[in-house]
Amino acid sequence: MSTGRMEAFSDGVIAILITVMVLELPKPHGVTWSALDDSYPVLLAYVLSFIYLGIYWNNHHHMLQATHRVSGGILWGNLHLLFWLSLVPFTTSWLGENELSTVTAAAYGINLLAAAVAFFVLQRLIIRDQGEGSVLRLAVGRDLKGKASPILYVTGIGLSFVTPVLGVALYVVVALIWLVPDRRLERTLAVTGS
Amino acid sequence: MSTGRMEAFSDGVIAILITVMVLELPKPHGVTWSALDDSYPVLLAYVLSFIYLGIYWNNHHHMLQATHRVSGGILWGNLHLLFWLSLVPFTTSWLGENELSTVTAAAYGINLLAAAVAFFVLQRLIIRDQGEGSVLRLAVGRDLKGKASPILYVTGIGLSFVTPVLGVALYVVVALIWLVPDRRLERTLAVTGS
Amino acid sequence: MSTGRMEAFSDGVIAILITVMVLELPKPHGVTWSALDDSYPVLLAYVLSFIYLGIYWNNHHHMLQATHRVSGGILWGNLHLLFWLSLVPFTTSWLGENELSTVTAAAYGINLLAAAVAFFVLQRLIIRDQGEGSVLRLAVGRDLKGKASPILYVTGIGLSFVTPVLGVALYVVVALIWLVPDRRLERTLAVTGS
Amino acid sequence: MSTGRMEAFSDGVIAILITVMVLELPKPHGVTWSALDDSYPVLLAYVLSFIYLGIYWNNHHHMLQATHRVSGGILWGNLHLLFWLSLVPFTTSWLGENELSTVTAAAYGINLLAAAVAFFVLQRLIIRDQGEGSVLRLAVGRDLKGKASPILYVTGIGLSFVTPVLGVALYVVVALIWLVPDRRLERTLAVTGS
Repeated sequence: MSTGRMEAFSDGVIAILITVMVLELPKPHGVTWSALDDSYPVLLAYVLSFIYLGIYWNNHHHMLQATHRVSGGILWGNLHLLFWLSLVPFTTSWLGENELSTVTAAAYGINLLAAAVAFFVLQRLIIRDQGEGSVLRLAVGRDLKGKASPILYVTGIGLSFVTPVLGVALYVVVALIWLVPDRRLERTLAVTGS
Repeated sequence: MSTGRMEAFSDGVIAILITVMVLELPKPHGVTWSALDDSYPVLLAYVLSFIYLGIYWNNHHHMLQATHRVSGGILWGNLHLLFWLSLVPFTTSWLGENELSTVTAAAYGINLLAAAVAFFVLQRLIIRDQGEGSVLRLAVGRDLKGKASPILYVTGIGLSFVTPVLGVALYVVVALIWLVPDRRLERTLAVTGS
Repeated sequence: MSTGRMEAFSDGVIAILITVMVLELPKPHGVTWSALDDSYPVLLAYVLSFIYLGIYWNNHHHMLQATHRVSGGILWGNLHLLFWLSLVPFTTSWLGENELSTVTAAAYGINLLAAAVAFFVLQRLIIRDQGEGSVLRLAVGRDLKGKASPILYVTGIGLSFVTPVLGVALYVVVALIWLVPDRRLERTLAVTGS
Repeated sequence: MSTGRMEAFSDGVIAILITVMVLELPKPHGVTWSALDDSYPVLLAYVLSFIYLGIYWNNHHHMLQATHRVSGGILWGNLHLLFWLSLVPFTTSWLGENELSTVTAAAYGINLLAAAVAFFVLQRLIIRDQGEGSVLRLAVGRDLKGKASPILYVTGIGLSFVTPVLGVALYVVVALIWLVPDRRLERTLAVTGS
């Protein structure tokens, strides 16, 4: 079985998530600039989630470039990832539509953590399916970002119980790490010995 | 006429259903963990429906792998299946957003039953269209799961009138039967003489 | 420019319309069968529109099979068709969520009429673009259904001002005309001299 | 990396935006023609945004025809464009669901301006990636429309502070400029020396 249809299906789901999320922005009441005041925090939360979904689409795209056949287990591993991604609009609106709080910041981080774990599991499923000399294993390399992200999410969740804004700040940092072009960062991390 | 566009259209519809369904989760009021209390039962119902839609996408995918041309009848058989699947978010939210009751559990089962019948009809349409030596007939084999599912749904609908939770439990069982890798189960069923 | 991306875009829009429409069904209040009473008329209206969108997807599919290149005019003719189709959920819910009335039955018919005209215009644009020996002109033939439909819609709109239920009944008849396999109907119409 | 999946993803997002936007039309209360009175201004705003999204889809389509490989920067440039497009339904409903005002007309124009800038940035990213003898640079030519649009949007935003209706009128003019077939306009502009 080829990867074409799984790719198309995943693209469809992520395209819907990324779009509908922004459509859920609360409508401003009134026609003054200050009517947007309620929209700003939600908008910021949505920008962060938009970038996260963009990163997942991007990484998913790259992962499937190194994948040439799909087993039943991989199909379900992919649906598992899509499930956690599909909860992102839910945790995003909870985060954005209320005062920043421990619970909503932690819930958002738990969602990110679950998606990262699901992505890692999917990657392992594909590598195991490819067996000896897996192309994906080569492409992934030491996967420093992939291994660091869950640790940073867990730290962010912990920080949310101290100061929610620090937890969210750490989620922003993880997003920036993924946005920075790949090779340079890996070299930097390698040099700093991490 | 080739199967490409029918496949793409079905993928689109199922991707939208599976995504929008999760977007419909009721937003929690307040920023405590207990604010999620109202979301849990709905979330559970959505997880079940997410898995069902995943199973349908998966099976649809496999069925079309053994299909090479599409007639007008097959196009409409496919739309008929998509119609019943498109009602799943409706029966899911009815099931999840109320106390578990006979009517909502039975309605959910009737929806699953109608989708299963529609899938079976579509399969027959393709096999009839392929005529002698149908590839799909070979691929389907004795189709134990396909034949057992409607019986289990009917039983589940019946149980809903006694104890709704048993009806829903049976729907969960059917989902698990489909999730278990194919060959092993068929052998098991063959050995136990069913 | 090839037809591939226009086809994919149209499929996407129609898939979203056909799905979201059913998602808009009003949620039943309570857990008795009679809680569905408010949903039935809407559900019936949605079934009709689901079939209409299915017919358009089907016909669009066939039309593009006989089309091999796309000009700027054709792209806009296609968007024009999609615009009228995208209003179908709007007129459908207006029709279904109120008592059957002259205005809602006529508005629904006007929407169907505009979509039929847009489809006809798109067909002409493609035929003109193909020039002498147009494949689509041959495929379309005398286009009895295409020519009869607008007349029937206008009649339906007129009937809505007398008895709304007759207007809607005529829209159902047009849908059935399109559902009936093509060749047989055309022969019948040819024999009866229409 | 080929452009196929980026194209499909963008098509998906634009198809969802263009469709869901029309689905957001406020439902009429009552079954008289005057019940539509509240819908007209929103409908007009939606028609304008539908045309704008159609223009972007069209131009995006053409741009990618002259693009043969995709870098990480181009993927993010594309997501950046999609982000601004995804805000269009938000500014559209703010524009249409209230009395025409300075703030809503300016906000709509700012959204259009940001999308135009994002499109321009994406175009530059692709041209830079193609290096010497860029196909896209040739296809774009002097890009009179692309360069005139932002100036007209800024003018429109300015006019909104004087007479909102003039600002919106200018946005309509820009849409018409893009709708008019390409070559003739460019020649006209060349002759008039702009």
